[in-house]
Amino acid sequence: MSRYAFGIDVGGTSVKLGLLTIDGEVVEKWEIDTDTSEGGKNILPDIAASVKDKMAEKGIKQEDVAGAGIGLPGPVDENGVINKAVNLHWDRKFNIAEELSNLLSGMHVKAGNDANVAALGEVWQGAGKGYKDMVMVTLGTGVGGGIIHDGKIVAGADGAAGEIGHLCIRPDETVSCNCGNCGCLEQYASATGIVRLVKEELEASDEDSLLRSGEVSAKTFWEAVGKGDKLCIRVAERFGRYLGIGLSIIGGVLNPEVFVIGGGVSRSGDLILPFIEKNFKAHVFHACANAKFVRATLGNDAGLIGAAKMVID
Amino acid sequence: MSRYAFGIDVGGTSVKLGLLTIDGEVVEKWEIDTDTSEGGKNILPDIAASVKDKMAEKGIKQEDVAGAGIGLPGPVDENGVINKAVNLHWDRKFNIAEELSNLLSGMHVKAGNDANVAALGEVWQGAGKGYKDMVMVTLGTGVGGGIIHDGKIVAGADGAAGEIGHLCIRPDETVSCNCGNCGCLEQYASATGIVRLVKEELEASDEDSLLRSGEVSAKTFWEAVGKGDKLCIRVAERFGRYLGIGLSIIGGVLNPEVFVIGGGVSRSGDLILPFIEKNFKAHVFHACANAKFVRATLGNDAGLIGAAKMVID
Repeated sequence: MSRYAFGIDVGGTSVKLGLLTIDGEVVEKWEIDTDTSEGGKNILPDIAASVKDKMAEKGIKQEDVAGAGIGLPGPVDENGVINKAVNLHWDRKFNIAEELSNLLSGMHVKAGNDANVAALGEVWQGAGKGYKDMVMVTLGTGVGGGIIHDGKIVAGADGAAGEIGHLCIRPDETVSCNCGNCGCLEQYASATGIVRLVKEELEASDEDSLLRSGEVSAKTFWEAVGKGDKLCIRVAERFGRYLGIGLSIIGGVLNPEVFVIGGGVSRSGDLILPFIEKNFKAHVFHACANAKFVRATLGNDAGLIGAAKMVID
Repeated sequence: MSRYAFGIDVGGTSVKLGLLTIDGEVVEKWEIDTDTSEGGKNILPDIAASVKDKMAEKGIKQEDVAGAGIGLPGPVDENGVINKAVNLHWDRKFNIAEELSNLLSGMHVKAGNDANVAALGEVWQGAGKGYKDMVMVTLGTGVGGGIIHDGKIVAGADGAAGEIGHLCIRPDETVSCNCGNCGCLEQYASATGIVRLVKEELEASDEDSLLRSGEVSAKTFWEAVGKGDKLCIRVAERFGRYLGIGLSIIGGVLNPEVFVIGGGVSRSGDLILPFIEKNFKAHVFHACANAKFVRATLGNDAGLIGAAKMVID
């Protein structure tokens, strides 16, 4: 009977690894550098060596381990095939689950997109615990997401399901998103998007604002909203309107039980949720209006916890 | 070994019933009236009697039947609980699968929303055959839809998943939808919506159009588009723009393999698909742009075929 699983969350700078019990307890977590030199060819061997070292250190045998799950910054389909990962300097399409399994003496390996895997972590051990149909929204530098249906990741035909940052919610927008389209959700709901909206407002008038001096960031912005800054509250209403409309559409398509809001922006406290919920309720089809909104609870550990869950039934 | 299944598609006027083999062949289909008198209390007993009559007529025993699936015009969750069905005059929440099973001597019964069940029919025996992740879009008087993930219906927490007619894709709209919100997809992509858009264009100028005389309907509209009517082509572009944007959002959330377009509007031929696809591709996130667009092939039988599939593994 397997007692452990490894969870691996690969980023462009570091790889987070975790040794978990199959009940979801994190026994130990650690990090290694992501070596993106030479087309990122050392990344998987480095991960495999780190896992084997940990097994040796703890006296854990292969048969004690249910497997290793790995989350990656790129589209990964349900068979574990990744199609490029720019941040890792990988430019080929290959079955990452198979390759890592070979490096780990045939250990059971499953792979997923990092945002999808984080969603699985939250539904297993975090804010989504007890739910089966959940949508995770990650508000950071960009906007990401993950769809959980019946307790499992929805990966999509090309591994690109849950890419909610690039839903077109404002087709008339003239400013381009990084992706090349215009009017993507990320242009209004990410940290970058919020800073852009604030700067536009500051330039449009001489209206007083706490952000006229000092740094304009998502953090200082939400602090100003909390202090009643009128200009910032107006921007928060726009943020909430676009995000609320976007989530109302996802709500009408999937009718989830709960939306879990995570990422750096969401750490600015419960302040943020009413701006989203109000606009969600104003635009969603009435039969789908019962969805709850909660903040993520696992922070940066969501990825490695969700990764481990992929190999635990 | 069961050889048969019953598929039942309940509408406000008539109930379509089908006797199918478990391989999906329709052995026989027939209709009975929907008796909505007395709060619709006779509907399920009438259906049960009709199924039993057919079994007696054909000499089919209970053990020959895998079960009966039933599609209904209202939200049905994955446990078979329906919460009102206005068209059937039902105003209570109850487990319809259980009630029909009791009326059928304990036969295995599953229930679903009619649009979701039709989607399952198309993915089993129709235009979606061979796919596992499919989105069905039904363009009729209104706009409906159904989501198929991993070959199964996504019902949603309240049985309201796939209600894509009421996705808010134009928040600035000032005309109200039947649902009370503004800017729903149905306001532009349904037969009713198209007629409204054409009438607006006809009133806005004296521009020549084939639809200046005679009936304005979705049918005459698409005929005029086919004949190169400039005013109508402009409306078709708007129809395609709103529907394409709506489907691009669904595409980004679910990354399906295929969109199946059904319903009365879609019978106007392959003419309609390019208007949708062009706008889908212009707005969808690049990783989700491979989705195919095909027309539904089962017509009105999709409902009873999909209903039967619910009870066949």
